[in-house]
Amino acid sequence: MKGRIVNVILSGGSGTRLWPLSRESKPKQFIQMFNDLSLFQHTVNRNKGLVDDFLLVTNSLQINQAKSQLDDISVDISKIIIEPIGRNTAPAIALAALSLDKDDIMIVTPSDHMIDDLELYNRSIEKSLELAEQDFLVTFGIKPTNPNTGFGYIESDGENVLSFREKPDSKTAKDFLNEGNFNWNSGIFCFKASTFLNELKKYNQLMFEACLIAIKSISKEGELNKELMLKIPSDSIDYAVLEKSEKIKTISSKFYWTDLGTFDAIIDYKIKSNKVDGLVKTTSDTYGFIEGKKLYTNKTDLIVVDTEDSIIILDRNHSNEVKELYSHMKIVNPELK
Amino acid sequence: MKGRIVNVILSGGSGTRLWPLSRESKPKQFIQMFNDLSLFQHTVNRNKGLVDDFLLVTNSLQINQAKSQLDDISVDISKIIIEPIGRNTAPAIALAALSLDKDDIMIVTPSDHMIDDLELYNRSIEKSLELAEQDFLVTFGIKPTNPNTGFGYIESDGENVLSFREKPDSKTAKDFLNEGNFNWNSGIFCFKASTFLNELKKYNQLMFEACLIAIKSISKEGELNKELMLKIPSDSIDYAVLEKSEKIKTISSKFYWTDLGTFDAIIDYKIKSNKVDGLVKTTSDTYGFIEGKKLYTNKTDLIVVDTEDSIIILDRNHSNEVKELYSHMKIVNPELK
Repeated sequence: MKGRIVNVILSGGSGTRLWPLSRESKPKQFIQMFNDLSLFQHTVNRNKGLVDDFLLVTNSLQINQAKSQLDDISVDISKIIIEPIGRNTAPAIALAALSLDKDDIMIVTPSDHMIDDLELYNRSIEKSLELAEQDFLVTFGIKPTNPNTGFGYIESDGENVLSFREKPDSKTAKDFLNEGNFNWNSGIFCFKASTFLNELKKYNQLMFEACLIAIKSISKEGELNKELMLKIPSDSIDYAVLEKSEKIKTISSKFYWTDLGTFDAIIDYKIKSNKVDGLVKTTSDTYGFIEGKKLYTNKTDLIVVDTEDSIIILDRNHSNEVKELYSHMKIVNPELK
Repeated sequence: MKGRIVNVILSGGSGTRLWPLSRESKPKQFIQMFNDLSLFQHTVNRNKGLVDDFLLVTNSLQINQAKSQLDDISVDISKIIIEPIGRNTAPAIALAALSLDKDDIMIVTPSDHMIDDLELYNRSIEKSLELAEQDFLVTFGIKPTNPNTGFGYIESDGENVLSFREKPDSKTAKDFLNEGNFNWNSGIFCFKASTFLNELKKYNQLMFEACLIAIKSISKEGELNKELMLKIPSDSIDYAVLEKSEKIKTISSKFYWTDLGTFDAIIDYKIKSNKVDGLVKTTSDTYGFIEGKKLYTNKTDLIVVDTEDSIIILDRNHSNEVKELYSHMKIVNPELK
């Protein structure tokens, strides 16, 4: 291998599906309730044995939390890109690629997912490195365990990608599961910096050139110029590159992967993994995201989330309904966002 | 009138039906959520214009809270009896009577009820004073507004009592309401000290004499000797005196009276009286006893109680089910009692 291996960690978006545990100023990846670590910290720990370096792409709202959580696990990331405004994944990855040597291999990962079975994960990464060396853009598909409608899918034939599919409806998701060759799109990618940039230039020259200009504005602290960022078209890597490129490969993986995007997903994961820190269970099968308090109820199958300024109550297995509570809150108590 | 008028305030028992708002060490009467005052403070305020003095019968767990809450409303009670162990209402009232002059008129009130319509209340008290002067034991019956099964009833014919009835079952309570001459037994009484003591001596000489001995042990601070208290048979004023005496009268009153003995009763009262401090209502008609936090849920008709160390959730209109939660708590987390 000519280049180094760099884990590019994307830490941008601020979800609302775990409100009030997560906030605009404290997104999901920084919530420390997985063996007292956050998903961001787990991401770094998971990859640090596999790579030569890290590159963090984040924003000004998150940079201090990220640095403080890196301190806690004694990891120092010197390569940082601070986006003054988010332009989705394709520009974020392009800006990262432009900051690296052309032969460096990027392992691009979200910062807010949980992965178990690290041996399987490591083996998948190793396989992806070989394909990346051969100038392929590698995507990671996860063997689905249920017809989840919250993820995109990759239709594959061995290592070859037949199609990318957006989040399906319930019936389509069941069909995918029956077909057997549809995997969840994990949002993890592996490629040489030069491979990605060549393909981007080929299929989206405007974005490539706008990124090329923007990256020149980088300050000592890693900040980019907002005006130049605004000139970059916002788009996902899937739309901007992957769905067009003919250099795509996919690795079908069976490691345990979850985006922990809902309270139900967190509860399921904590039960499965026996890591119940921050979670309380009553005798009536109601679950509480509660710290330092006891929960008593005779109501069954509720989810109770208690924070300093807000309490929410939802039905178990319907925790996506937090969206409506969030919308209502934004109108009547926007200071709680 | 030869004697003075004294409000004897009974502040003893420690209910469990408002747990975790109330605790063994902080009974219902001290919870300050009725225009920022407690029921104890409201009791004192309600009566201070009607009486010459107060006498507080309480215990060592409560005395400091009582004094501090009296300070807050700038009332000084010098007559205090501290029972080292509770013996129910008959001995408490007897000990109070023995501490007063024989011609003093006692208005005996619980400390944990809420009364509105103070003009009607004042008029009832005035009427009771006339009857007390004539050596009657006066009970206060409240015109029932619903077939409540949580209260005792007084069957009356004008000012004469036909019978005292214990908490009825649901059918009996409805019959009472239809009959028209059954009132809720408010637990408020009015009589001369001598009248009560004479009747007690007549129907329960053992209790009378044990109280006579116990009261002699009173310390400067108002504390009685525990061994002597244990020798007093424990009984309610209803059983020990009222049901036997022929000197009973009753006043049928229409002032708004509630024992606020359940979360549902408190919610009803707060809605009725438009005093919603400490109470939160969601758009889904769920109520929260929550301070300084917002509550969001799409679940309807719940009651949520949030305190520093415990959260409970119950169904609206079934808040008596807190009993089972309390029993469970006592086993698994007795420190929360």
